[in-house]
Amino acid sequence: MKTSLDCIPCFVRQALDAARLVSKDPAVHEEILREVLRWTVDIDMHQTAPVMAQRIHRRLRELVGVEDPYKDVKDHQNRMALKLLPELKASIDMAVDPLMTAVRLAIAGNVIDTGVNAAVTETRVLDSVRKALTEPFAGDRREFCRAVTGARHILYLTDNAGEIAFDRMLIEQLDPEKVTVAVRGAPVINDATMDDALAVGLHRIVEVIDNGSDAPGTLLEDCSQAFRRRFAEADLILAKGQGNFESLSDHPSSILFLFQAKCHVIAASARVALGTHVLAPSDTLTN
Amino acid sequence: MKTSLDCIPCFVRQALDAARLVSKDPAVHEEILREVLRWTVDIDMHQTAPVMAQRIHRRLRELVGVEDPYKDVKDHQNRMALKLLPELKASIDMAVDPLMTAVRLAIAGNVIDTGVNAAVTETRVLDSVRKALTEPFAGDRREFCRAVTGARHILYLTDNAGEIAFDRMLIEQLDPEKVTVAVRGAPVINDATMDDALAVGLHRIVEVIDNGSDAPGTLLEDCSQAFRRRFAEADLILAKGQGNFESLSDHPSSILFLFQAKCHVIAASARVALGTHVLAPSDTLTN
Repeated sequence: MKTSLDCIPCFVRQALDAARLVSKDPAVHEEILREVLRWTVDIDMHQTAPVMAQRIHRRLRELVGVEDPYKDVKDHQNRMALKLLPELKASIDMAVDPLMTAVRLAIAGNVIDTGVNAAVTETRVLDSVRKALTEPFAGDRREFCRAVTGARHILYLTDNAGEIAFDRMLIEQLDPEKVTVAVRGAPVINDATMDDALAVGLHRIVEVIDNGSDAPGTLLEDCSQAFRRRFAEADLILAKGQGNFESLSDHPSSILFLFQAKCHVIAASARVALGTHVLAPSDTLTN
Repeated sequence: MKTSLDCIPCFVRQALDAARLVSKDPAVHEEILREVLRWTVDIDMHQTAPVMAQRIHRRLRELVGVEDPYKDVKDHQNRMALKLLPELKASIDMAVDPLMTAVRLAIAGNVIDTGVNAAVTETRVLDSVRKALTEPFAGDRREFCRAVTGARHILYLTDNAGEIAFDRMLIEQLDPEKVTVAVRGAPVINDATMDDALAVGLHRIVEVIDNGSDAPGTLLEDCSQAFRRRFAEADLILAKGQGNFESLSDHPSSILFLFQAKCHVIAASARVALGTHVLAPSDTLTN
């Protein structure tokens, strides 16, 4: 999906939030903010939002001279999620429908999004879990089951650190043999990279690859050739989070998006109310 | 007070909100947004926020070719406030402390702020009234009474349409003989101008002047000479709203600010929690 005019004030706010998270120097905050404003003057609204976000966070890392400014944040988020896992796994085991409970929990984990909310507490995550388990969500159970049962090669695109532990529970409910997990190729915001996959033990149950890109989404033209080959070979893509939805919603592959609609623009594009937990097929799957 | 870095994403969002309110043409929305981004790249952070807001809204009016794009909004807000007045006046009459009840209601009316929230409903206003009448607010009753009793010339700077009807109830509780009310000199957002003062009948109880400026605040250097003279002659200024606080908080005159702290930057500057109803003296009054 294209960038909306509403994304612009959000980019500016995100840049400021991010600058403050990675540096204590007000001069750095102001410098990154003015740069982002300068770029957005001529922004190409036909690009997807993750293109701009990639640019912002590259510059941010350059300015503070740190390769992975969110390392501590991500480590904390992984620990927080792992701590919750035993109880959540038990609720999957006891559920009437373990697969859909795992789907719901994987979407619950999408609340751990530093791009939208810089400080995600355990209380916030537990609220999201409660909502995921008790409230109706926008998605079709049968369609999901048909898609995952019929697929021989599933490529699972992760989103954030912490959330990736929730993804592990869903992958355990699928047939891990036919699943490949792809993380980002380099640090950007709190998006999960190979380190996070290792931290939550995903490599022990499934093949994990990286996409070769530092965009907070999946910009295929920016991904490695190896990733693009796997993307083309998969007959089903499960894509987590808003960034993957923004960057792949117009792609002709068979994709199931799992995310929380955390902003008005995405909610409108997915035709759901703000805050909805979504399991949305790409048009290819719907038609 | 100076512009904060946090004001920048807010300017951008406000510009987009305002563009959508005054025009249905997406090309106009994009044009004003890109212009605002271009200005903010080089924004002087030592200016107050109303300087930038004045510039945005001048350009907006120029682009849509309408002198007062918020006319209908303001007319509606005045009607809404006037409809509530009889009941609110009755609550003042029955109050143990009519003056402070009128102060609280005047601050309640400050919720009618199109710059912060484009659509202010009657329910929202009634919530604000309830909060104003029941919750503690940040302010010193004795200091207020001493200041208004001791003053011979009070200049009352209004903020928004609709709100100005609430101001009328407070002015009725003061000695209207010694009060002059000043409205903005020309339309900007939903700020009250002479038309709004007439609409709520303020001219029937008090002298109303305009400040000669189209800034959503009081930028003295931009105001008429006549207004500046009245400002200098007053021994007490009552200033409503965030815009007047932002533009006059560093001024050496004796000023009492009455407003709702609707944003983090203002709340931090006034040293209150977000959402607090504030009756705050300028440093001159405090010391």
